[in-house]
Amino acid sequence: MLKKSAILFIIVLSFTSTAYAAPTTESLQLSIDLVWVMVAAFLVFFMHAGFAMVESGFTRAKNSLNILMKNFITISAAAILFFIVGYGIMFGTSAGSFIGSDGFMLSGVEDIGFFIFQAMFVATCATIISGAVAERMKLGSYVLIVIAMTAVIYPVVGHWIWQGDGWLTALGFSDFAGSTVVHLTGAVGALTVVLFLGPRIGKYSGKKVNVIPGHNIPIGALGVFILWLGWFGFNGGSTLAADPSLVPMVIGTTVLSTSGALLASALYTKIRFKRVDASLSLNGVLGGLVGITAGCAEISLGGSIIVGLISGVLLVEGIRFLDTKLKIDDPVGAITVHGICGIWGTLAVGLFSTSSGLFYGNGITQLGIQAIGVIAVIAWTMITVGAFTFIISRVSPIRVSEEEEISGLDFAEHGSNAYELKETLLTNETTPVEGKLALADRLNNLSAATEKKLS
Amino acid sequence: MLKKSAILFIIVLSFTSTAYAAPTTESLQLSIDLVWVMVAAFLVFFMHAGFAMVESGFTRAKNSLNILMKNFITISAAAILFFIVGYGIMFGTSAGSFIGSDGFMLSGVEDIGFFIFQAMFVATCATIISGAVAERMKLGSYVLIVIAMTAVIYPVVGHWIWQGDGWLTALGFSDFAGSTVVHLTGAVGALTVVLFLGPRIGKYSGKKVNVIPGHNIPIGALGVFILWLGWFGFNGGSTLAADPSLVPMVIGTTVLSTSGALLASALYTKIRFKRVDASLSLNGVLGGLVGITAGCAEISLGGSIIVGLISGVLLVEGIRFLDTKLKIDDPVGAITVHGICGIWGTLAVGLFSTSSGLFYGNGITQLGIQAIGVIAVIAWTMITVGAFTFIISRVSPIRVSEEEEISGLDFAEHGSNAYELKETLLTNETTPVEGKLALADRLNNLSAATEKKLS
Amino acid sequence: MLKKSAILFIIVLSFTSTAYAAPTTESLQLSIDLVWVMVAAFLVFFMHAGFAMVESGFTRAKNSLNILMKNFITISAAAILFFIVGYGIMFGTSAGSFIGSDGFMLSGVEDIGFFIFQAMFVATCATIISGAVAERMKLGSYVLIVIAMTAVIYPVVGHWIWQGDGWLTALGFSDFAGSTVVHLTGAVGALTVVLFLGPRIGKYSGKKVNVIPGHNIPIGALGVFILWLGWFGFNGGSTLAADPSLVPMVIGTTVLSTSGALLASALYTKIRFKRVDASLSLNGVLGGLVGITAGCAEISLGGSIIVGLISGVLLVEGIRFLDTKLKIDDPVGAITVHGICGIWGTLAVGLFSTSSGLFYGNGITQLGIQAIGVIAVIAWTMITVGAFTFIISRVSPIRVSEEEEISGLDFAEHGSNAYELKETLLTNETTPVEGKLALADRLNNLSAATEKKLS
Repeated sequence: MLKKSAILFIIVLSFTSTAYAAPTTESLQLSIDLVWVMVAAFLVFFMHAGFAMVESGFTRAKNSLNILMKNFITISAAAILFFIVGYGIMFGTSAGSFIGSDGFMLSGVEDIGFFIFQAMFVATCATIISGAVAERMKLGSYVLIVIAMTAVIYPVVGHWIWQGDGWLTALGFSDFAGSTVVHLTGAVGALTVVLFLGPRIGKYSGKKVNVIPGHNIPIGALGVFILWLGWFGFNGGSTLAADPSLVPMVIGTTVLSTSGALLASALYTKIRFKRVDASLSLNGVLGGLVGITAGCAEISLGGSIIVGLISGVLLVEGIRFLDTKLKIDDPVGAITVHGICGIWGTLAVGLFSTSSGLFYGNGITQLGIQAIGVIAVIAWTMITVGAFTFIISRVSPIRVSEEEEISGLDFAEHGSNAYELKETLLTNETTPVEGKLALADRLNNLSAATEKKLS
Repeated sequence: MLKKSAILFIIVLSFTSTAYAAPTTESLQLSIDLVWVMVAAFLVFFMHAGFAMVESGFTRAKNSLNILMKNFITISAAAILFFIVGYGIMFGTSAGSFIGSDGFMLSGVEDIGFFIFQAMFVATCATIISGAVAERMKLGSYVLIVIAMTAVIYPVVGHWIWQGDGWLTALGFSDFAGSTVVHLTGAVGALTVVLFLGPRIGKYSGKKVNVIPGHNIPIGALGVFILWLGWFGFNGGSTLAADPSLVPMVIGTTVLSTSGALLASALYTKIRFKRVDASLSLNGVLGGLVGITAGCAEISLGGSIIVGLISGVLLVEGIRFLDTKLKIDDPVGAITVHGICGIWGTLAVGLFSTSSGLFYGNGITQLGIQAIGVIAVIAWTMITVGAFTFIISRVSPIRVSEEEEISGLDFAEHGSNAYELKETLLTNETTPVEGKLALADRLNNLSAATEKKLS
Repeated sequence: MLKKSAILFIIVLSFTSTAYAAPTTESLQLSIDLVWVMVAAFLVFFMHAGFAMVESGFTRAKNSLNILMKNFITISAAAILFFIVGYGIMFGTSAGSFIGSDGFMLSGVEDIGFFIFQAMFVATCATIISGAVAERMKLGSYVLIVIAMTAVIYPVVGHWIWQGDGWLTALGFSDFAGSTVVHLTGAVGALTVVLFLGPRIGKYSGKKVNVIPGHNIPIGALGVFILWLGWFGFNGGSTLAADPSLVPMVIGTTVLSTSGALLASALYTKIRFKRVDASLSLNGVLGGLVGITAGCAEISLGGSIIVGLISGVLLVEGIRFLDTKLKIDDPVGAITVHGICGIWGTLAVGLFSTSSGLFYGNGITQLGIQAIGVIAVIAWTMITVGAFTFIISRVSPIRVSEEEEISGLDFAEHGSNAYELKETLLTNETTPVEGKLALADRLNNLSAATEKKLS
């Protein structure tokens, strides 16, 4: 028995390097860091389930299939494009500190684990757009935007900030896990496309701002939990190593900032609107996560609570401001979550970093550098996404027809429904088991009453 | 290319301790244990998604937002309060073997990873209450209970049992992952508050016990799967180390106990009620998990199956007994799952522990100690939660008004609905695609028929 | 404070082996591999949540509880049966290279972690059947099939291929993570039982093939995401070690194949049916996962994309062929996903393996061996499952009655509903808050209009 188990093990080992068979402290370190980064990559992957549930739950049922397909296509297209071209542009040898120039198809790249982790990030950036453009953008046009974002636009930003030779790295810009690289880039892309698209039919009637409620908040709430979970990998894995002196701090600040943000959003909506608003509070969680992403490795645990509290309030006011003042229709609040809280998180490093922040007696230098990075990324993303969207919208409309929008994108683009729940109301008709008063019964009663009165 | 990748790596390492850069077997051990405990903490965090889905799915749709918000607030408040005060009370220097007295705000605490893992446990204990008080307790009052539980009541129990100097530790009380510390404490808190609250409107009419079915069992079932997954971290992470001689046994007993409990609940309801009851079977899974939590590290694999089988039957009878005999209205069965199975799990150590259990020839000493611990925790929790609930209920009612309860807490406290599913029934009205007979069509047909007969 | 934390740690260590307390590079290697395999096992466990959501969401609401219970019973029964008998048959000392003969109840087995990982696989194989037989098979009969599959039929296949002395191992058959062992075995079992069962009522009327749409595609899509996540453990954990030279490649091929398959299914349905079909695309994800499972450790990253693209197209055509040509009613497409893509994945090793594949200049030997394995497993599974199903169907019908099928298995077997959503349509009746036009209002308006006309 045991011998056979050993044989199996040897068979497996025969695939592996000889170095591994005789462990050294260096090889062990590689193995530990591998496990950590792989776990983190899995968690970041799972964030896409979270995005899909949030975006689907917070919009209308008639557009659910469409938003789900957008999410699946985003992760799939991003992985393949980042393999073919994006990774090279992001982490290849720097051309002028601006763009990578080799490593396409991972040629010459040894650390496949690092590629996998980064590939999950790319898709995160792109999928932010899918929420903001929900319920009205054509699937095909969205896919073109995803291609541009994941193959070029995001990798260039990543090169500036996360590749050792990037110009923002050289300047001292600090964005540990991507408040700017991932979230702000995605949000600016989203805002730009939304400005081309315009609001959904019925969102604004004259001066009136209508609420279009999501169809399934519980599944959206599950999505928020999944995102929070995934973020432990997003921030925690950005250490790239299972370092006992760093990882727990990163996870600790992530937990405390998010907790602070949820409580702030809940309490703030209670004070401002006389009720704890569920949708805004759930978005508060996401705001707290984005807010600590840049500084999770260099802000104290106490500081992270403050960062989170501010994120939670900013989130509520940001969504209100975009929705009611600027009349920018962002069905799931993605632009505020990832954009406004992304900017806040990036600047917070300049304030709360224990090594370079203003509040720790280090002057405003870091804060200034952070602001430069934010401005540069906004400019780059808005210009490139704007130009690209302009071009594709000239070729063919990027928005579905009015008729398709009203009937729902699920019918228009996929020819089917996300839900078939009628039977849950009509089961009593076909079942011999006596049940509770179903709507069907009410119909029948009404019909019978009518018959009776008519006869 | 590769050079750049290395540079990035060095940048990251620059944050880290020098000890880490030159790995020793001791530093590697720390790293491995860190990864294990972090993974476990993530899984325990994810249990909150499971609780939220179980509690939401097993209650009515009109109270879904409220229960979701309660879950999010619980984890958030617990994390921050445990950071500020709870950790110190639980793991600080012991004052009289009863309560911790330092380490507030984690001052002087080095092992942040241990704090994170423990912080996830606190919230678990508190969130048990949210299920039992569902559909009728005010959000604000619930939050006060959460504050008392996470800041003081639970940490004191934890101090007794999990801090080296606690009086129950000294006595030899054994509760590896918290059948008593977490689950019994939470369940007794829940029972106490429920006694103050009373049953939901319509639950008991005279002698009649009415079933108020959950509105979405599939999402509840997903929650059960998530809880089972999370429990691998709950029990497995309680080893605090990636120990090959201990971890697989802990996971193995957890899997087998739970499997036994599910099968027992399913079979037992089939025999007793002539049908496999889905809700009770799903709760059986949770009963099996709670049942093995105390003894997962010292019960054999075979023993764990027996512990699980008994948990599954106890769960069914416990829920029946509370519901129909004691008329205690616990919408999701939380008191039985965590309380009755928690007591059973704690006592099971005294019976099935391979090192100290009665069935392995060790006499009844351990069983007696286990019973003392159970009684002490019940007394402490019931008195403190009871006193606290009494006080806050004098200040302001802890239960929503009758009108609010009937209309649903989602409207009353949050001003919106969890679901907007009407369009899933009405899509055919607005779509050019021919579809199946929708309820809308039936309405139209009925209307037309009426018109016809009238004319 | 810190001292106490240390004491706690020592208490924990007292459970552990002394070897662990003084780490060596060998003990550290064991710990790292343990963490990796445990994480992988957790992920494979979580696949059962994915299967449950896919199978529930892709079928009708009236059969949801039944399918959920089938999934829970499968994992539970599989774990216990694999512990008692299956592990011994699969990994015990080989009797004639055909079947294991010891290790029952894990007697003499030291590597409990390996058992746990394998136990999760068993359930995966069995649960494939639950999807194919959905909406018409009796719960009791299904459980009997699960017992046969997990105790004997699957372990024998596993012995042939994954135990060092199995005859297919000896032949050089390569199936790294189980395209054949797990997926093909499950699919052939499913096909065999489906041939006994016949199609659902209303599926085929004369020559007409009716579509019976799933009731909740969003929850099904979440299930697909969960399965994709879980598959990282399924394939990645099959390395059985945290090997930096192997694991990232396995995860990389898994990500890229799946991404290719999703894109292929989406694009192919767009071309073939003029719309991106959501259900087929989601099944495409699963097809891509099954397709790379055998070869994930020996196919290049580029090769894996091609394997995935082909999987995605095969999936669409396979489902069409079974449904419309062979008139085999497989509600969730399980036979195509796991069977056709399982065969493709197994043969793909013979084509794309960088060490033995035809396309890398290694001739057709490997391809031939792969084909032999496929044929042998199909024959074994079809004969054993067929004989077993024949016998049990003689004793008692394995299909529910026509009346039960029409009324739904949830009422027939469990006496309750999966959903209680009526109130989501009727909330406005009982709430003082003014809301949007609910169906209830429409009913009332209609009623009022009728009244008015009548008077």
